[in-house]
Amino acid sequence: MTKLHKLDDSLLHYAWDNSVAPRLTIDPGDTVVFATRDAADHYYTKDSTSQNVEEKGALIGHPLTGPVFIRDAQPGDTLILDVIDVVPSLDFGWTAIRPGKGLLPQEEFPNCFLQIWDLSDGKIARMKQRDDIAIPIAAFPGILGVALDEAGEHSTIPPRKNGGNMDIRHLSKGTTVFLPVWVEGALFSVGDAHAAQGDGEVCITAIEMSATVTLKIDLKKGDAIAEPRFRMHEPLCTATNTGTHYATTAHGPDLYECSQRAVRYMIEHIVKERGLNREEAYVLCSVCVDLKISEIVDSPNWIVSAFLPEMVFV
Amino acid sequence: MTKLHKLDDSLLHYAWDNSVAPRLTIDPGDTVVFATRDAADHYYTKDSTSQNVEEKGALIGHPLTGPVFIRDAQPGDTLILDVIDVVPSLDFGWTAIRPGKGLLPQEEFPNCFLQIWDLSDGKIARMKQRDDIAIPIAAFPGILGVALDEAGEHSTIPPRKNGGNMDIRHLSKGTTVFLPVWVEGALFSVGDAHAAQGDGEVCITAIEMSATVTLKIDLKKGDAIAEPRFRMHEPLCTATNTGTHYATTAHGPDLYECSQRAVRYMIEHIVKERGLNREEAYVLCSVCVDLKISEIVDSPNWIVSAFLPEMVFV
Repeated sequence: MTKLHKLDDSLLHYAWDNSVAPRLTIDPGDTVVFATRDAADHYYTKDSTSQNVEEKGALIGHPLTGPVFIRDAQPGDTLILDVIDVVPSLDFGWTAIRPGKGLLPQEEFPNCFLQIWDLSDGKIARMKQRDDIAIPIAAFPGILGVALDEAGEHSTIPPRKNGGNMDIRHLSKGTTVFLPVWVEGALFSVGDAHAAQGDGEVCITAIEMSATVTLKIDLKKGDAIAEPRFRMHEPLCTATNTGTHYATTAHGPDLYECSQRAVRYMIEHIVKERGLNREEAYVLCSVCVDLKISEIVDSPNWIVSAFLPEMVFV
Repeated sequence: MTKLHKLDDSLLHYAWDNSVAPRLTIDPGDTVVFATRDAADHYYTKDSTSQNVEEKGALIGHPLTGPVFIRDAQPGDTLILDVIDVVPSLDFGWTAIRPGKGLLPQEEFPNCFLQIWDLSDGKIARMKQRDDIAIPIAAFPGILGVALDEAGEHSTIPPRKNGGNMDIRHLSKGTTVFLPVWVEGALFSVGDAHAAQGDGEVCITAIEMSATVTLKIDLKKGDAIAEPRFRMHEPLCTATNTGTHYATTAHGPDLYECSQRAVRYMIEHIVKERGLNREEAYVLCSVCVDLKISEIVDSPNWIVSAFLPEMVFV
């Protein structure tokens, strides 16, 4: 018989470190309800401003809830995570621009910026200062990860072979995530929930929030995968894929530069057509614009396209 | 009063060259029905085999139907193309693997390969040798382009600031495409229709076909854009976004290498779980797997994800 466990956010860790003692031991097939803190570890409030981004300073490590030891998990196995639910645990979220981080360089966005979102209705994230922007909440944990097989502390910021800070918006309710196991017991942790995000997370943050994340954790013995995979049981982007999309494109031999240019064009478009300021437009791109690789074979020019779901303008 | 024009495929051009004489002159707002030939210029038949790919040799230039001179179009204007319809004009399509082209290197796919698709029912592309693979037809012109402002012949293969071989699967019925105008009259041409394609077109070809492409061609004076843009009036991927998706991910500092690895994992998955051979699996990725940039900010590792709509397995 499988069990339901709860793990609060009273004892967090801030790095991938396989020497961190497990807070919980479960059997494969059990379900765990995790309380997770936002990436800024409860630093911001609903009244925070861009000044607070400056004062806080750069992220050292994401607060992670865990680790969970899964009985019988061995290196070479695959952890199977069913995302049962992801629910905001506070009534607001935030998106920050930190100069020099994110897809566009410091010269283009030289100032710290903070956007507060009202999550109080549970279904829609509303831009605090604009009542004509409403992003459907499509919540997911930015970080789902296991311990690495290398000793010591490893930053939570880059995603790795253990999953970690994948920031894949599709790892939401109804998705099954497959993570390779690297150490005995897997030592699974979760954190960094997002209320909504576009493919790319271009300004460096999504709609960041504290959340309750419910996962069924199962195990497949053997059949190792090299990097995370997942299966979505629902059609993609059901919350935003309901109407028109506006898209910009950029071509060239470098996908990163193409992405930068496609996002620049989108920011120009949003500022011009929707009356947001540049920072608000960059934030909007980060929380709802999707980057697609349209073609990667017509040498020497690939194309990246940025898609804006226009249903967010209400 | 706007007019309806027709342009057959009897007089083609095979390069972007602003000295090619216009075949048709229209007013902004007119509609043109273009007959277009497939990328191989009617080389393949339903009975063609992989041997024919070898014999044909590499593509020199796509056959283009046009150019059309649009009255009053000047450099700095924007051409507005409403994609009214894209319909296969023959009852088959093809996908070719040509070693050394495409996303994966010659060492991994050393042999030419040809996949013939049955398009006879008009709605579904069926893999000739497998009755359990059915790709919904979601047709679009791979090439929509205008003449460049540089003299001489320019290859049709790479997409450019004139649009051209964009291979953006979303430029299908119901989409409005915005192209910058670079020469007087714009000199618009179209070709290289695809019955279906994934974001990425990873093996170098989609489901290539001859088609009838109907476009309403309008003009916006001034308000120059640097690169093509578009607006979709329908939700994205309505034909394939109906059920589950399986996704692979790859992380690292280079988006191109991430794309390669994500596609490799997907090929492995398809071969293992669906019993296709490697060439068939690569072709399947090209015609229906979408590459998304999941995140591009968690330095130093970005993530590319490859999404397979599992509704294609029937």
